Amino acid sequence: MDATRLRYDEHGLIPAIVQQHDTGEVLMMAWMSVATVRESIATGETVFWSRSRDERWHKGATSGNTQKIVTMTADCDADVLLVRVDQQGSGACHTGARTCFHDDLETDDA
Amino acid sequence: MDATRLRYDEHGLIPAIVQQHDTGEVLMMAWMSVATVRESIATGETVFWSRSRDERWHKGATSGNTQKIVTMTADCDADVLLVRVDQQGSGACHTGARTCFHDDLETDDA
Repeated sequence: MDATRLRYDEHGLIPAIVQQHDTGEVLMMAWMSVATVRESIATGETVFWSRSRDERWHKGATSGNTQKIVTMTADCDADVLLVRVDQQGSGACHTGARTCFHDDLETDDA
Repeated sequence: MDATRLRYDEHGLIPAIVQQHDTGEVLMMAWMSVATVRESIATGETVFWSRSRDERWHKGATSGNTQKIVTMTADCDADVLLVRVDQQGSGACHTGARTCFHDDLETDDA
């Protein structure tokens, strides 16, 4: 499986789930283009495509909170990536938290 | 956080990452509409919106491989869900595998 065999959406992007390789924590989800998939593979650090800023985004380039890639795995229909990393610095979230997932839905009272 | 406060994309969908709650395995990623988020919360089992079939999809309804929801958590900008589940049956993947993620990219040779 290489970058060109992945299935990108109508915007040329694929979702990338980022997981801490040893603890299993899901840290964040962001989007990659074919170019940033290739750059991630080539550099060993996560590089995304920011949909809000419409630009390449090397995670941690300014904060130091980079993500060292351990493995990148596509799902069964090749339209989602799971990127196992070693998160550097304080964490993945722009709020300073370790993970972006901290807002529980009230599953007993919808 | 309730279902209506989430941010859905231009198709009215939000990505839902499904993780086995105790092992940390990422099992699959699929999409939910506001209605299937609500139905997942109300029933305690994952219900998605199938983009390929353009219809509601109660995971495991025919195979028995349902997913019992433990927690549902939104990310910091409320446009991705992390659903921690207890996967029933043989696994999450339509191939019969435990997880949908089994196609490693060759990260040393892009």
